Amino acid sequence: MSLTDKKDINITPISSLGEFALIDKLTNSFKTKHKETIKGIGDDCAVFDSLKNYKLLSTDMLVEGVHFDLSYSPLKHLGYKSIAVNVSDICAMNGIATHVTVSIAASNRFSVEALEELYLGIDLACTKYNIDLVGGDTTSSLSGLIISVSVYGSVKKKNISYRSGAKPNDLLVVTGDLGAAYLGLQLLKREKEIFKSNPTMQPDLTGNDYALERQLKPEPPSKYIKILNDLKITPTAMIDISDGLSSEALHIAKASNVGVRIHEEKIPVDYTIMNLANEFNLNPIFCALSGGEDYELLFSINQSDYEKIKKDPDFTIVGYVTDISEGNNFIANDGSIHPLTAQGWDGTKEQ
Amino acid sequence: MSLTDKKDINITPISSLGEFALIDKLTNSFKTKHKETIKGIGDDCAVFDSLKNYKLLSTDMLVEGVHFDLSYSPLKHLGYKSIAVNVSDICAMNGIATHVTVSIAASNRFSVEALEELYLGIDLACTKYNIDLVGGDTTSSLSGLIISVSVYGSVKKKNISYRSGAKPNDLLVVTGDLGAAYLGLQLLKREKEIFKSNPTMQPDLTGNDYALERQLKPEPPSKYIKILNDLKITPTAMIDISDGLSSEALHIAKASNVGVRIHEEKIPVDYTIMNLANEFNLNPIFCALSGGEDYELLFSINQSDYEKIKKDPDFTIVGYVTDISEGNNFIANDGSIHPLTAQGWDGTKEQ
Repeated sequence: MSLTDKKDINITPISSLGEFALIDKLTNSFKTKHKETIKGIGDDCAVFDSLKNYKLLSTDMLVEGVHFDLSYSPLKHLGYKSIAVNVSDICAMNGIATHVTVSIAASNRFSVEALEELYLGIDLACTKYNIDLVGGDTTSSLSGLIISVSVYGSVKKKNISYRSGAKPNDLLVVTGDLGAAYLGLQLLKREKEIFKSNPTMQPDLTGNDYALERQLKPEPPSKYIKILNDLKITPTAMIDISDGLSSEALHIAKASNVGVRIHEEKIPVDYTIMNLANEFNLNPIFCALSGGEDYELLFSINQSDYEKIKKDPDFTIVGYVTDISEGNNFIANDGSIHPLTAQGWDGTKEQ
Repeated sequence: MSLTDKKDINITPISSLGEFALIDKLTNSFKTKHKETIKGIGDDCAVFDSLKNYKLLSTDMLVEGVHFDLSYSPLKHLGYKSIAVNVSDICAMNGIATHVTVSIAASNRFSVEALEELYLGIDLACTKYNIDLVGGDTTSSLSGLIISVSVYGSVKKKNISYRSGAKPNDLLVVTGDLGAAYLGLQLLKREKEIFKSNPTMQPDLTGNDYALERQLKPEPPSKYIKILNDLKITPTAMIDISDGLSSEALHIAKASNVGVRIHEEKIPVDYTIMNLANEFNLNPIFCALSGGEDYELLFSINQSDYEKIKKDPDFTIVGYVTDISEGNNFIANDGSIHPLTAQGWDGTKEQ
């Protein structure tokens, strides 16, 4: 009997719910039973009490054809990225990643040498970020490659940053710059189409190293965690930017029960990315707000910490936290105010 | 460029290596960097030092079409099983599971209600075994359902049981009985074939509840961990029986640098399973040695612990540990001695 034969039950397509609504629907009846469980589902990591520290645990799955395309994603880069995106979740709690497990399911299209390439990338990332690979599972799949990574780490109790601690008048800060990973993806997709229509053409990717590297081999924001620690700043709330700045800002707003206000003119975009966006006829701010995969951090700090970061080029203040009654807003360069949505801002269609 | 276009690299099919050789090949260059990492890859769980306790971490992936068939595996059972098989790995270290993360990739063939069924089973297992679900990932897949579970737990330092501590003259003990899960699978496969050839026939599974339950809804061996603790027995080595008794005994032998000797007449098989094996013209001892998925425990104890367990029907002494020079042997009912192999014993073909 196949699943679709069951005429007596409701059939709701998964696509009719967003990812977060789906997780919530599937897990909202689960109760935590252990007093050491400080935080279960709903932040970047699970958090367990462990004397001086909190222990952190998170997991991510990468599926071929959904999260990556092996026609332009080299396996070594993919291995590196699978670790980086998980370490990023630990960073988002202001923590340090220490251990990972890696499970892979691969169809018989993959050779041992292909998997060795993948693990070379995993090893590179583990070496660079001082992480022990301590377990995993390898199995066959009927089609494609699936990579599931779990990451374990820790943070001093006094330093933990949840999504839920932002307070009105806090400053909103992002690390690095945004939008590059999304444009790197557009570039790879374009060159793939050109290659498909004319396989003798060589892809022309010159001058776009930065966008490509940000897409294919992202670095987790670990260095910023060290800088924040050196500056003695504990963000009041923090999240990593995996789905785009606007989506992450809304997560902080919802979890902290506050509003956020983001200024277009403040959003940091690399100049090569500005040019590339123009080439694709895309608004670079749209790429920053909604593109995703930048793996930078968005965090809020008390205004008293402003002096500590104002001269540091690693950090850009992009807005501030407001009372919840003010809603979530995007202030365009012309001074107009638009409701901020997960897709960017309500003025997007007019761009 | 597809992976198979790379003519300048060697192409070794994954199937030419066993799962364990593959993991070893992929990970043997990885070095552990943290002194808290007591055990990385190579046992049932990773082990981290944490003051009074060791923390345990393990992960398993279940792939549709490889590990389960939804035409006879109800989703609720599958959810339950996905937790059970992971908890079993924590038991194999003599530990208690406390937390899990669950990631799923599902194609658009699955409805929200189908995933809710899956999570009902996950919730049932988490409730029964006192485990907090603390994270995960839900994503789409291009085909089928993939479930990746990571499990976290702990064990008192003095109680941990690795695979590597067995000593010559230790007794080899198994919990419960063996072979049932494998026969449950044969039964389900047979009824599926009958259904395919004549869809109006109803499957006849009466009288085989035990085999079916062992296959579809296995219980982790958590209760035996409690009993061992109450009896003040710490196994010198332990492993869970996921791949069949012979394969697991060989793991202990290799990790402990010893030989093992298993007596056919001692292997515990339920009487209903004896009958079912006859129906399938299978040797029930072969099912116990090589069938897999029983999720019982195999462990070694010092002979001084013999008095504590000899009257407990939960435990069966199936053999003993020898010097490595004696090799790994299977003693048949007729007294003949055969080398023990992962596939059972060398006399298998003659059965």
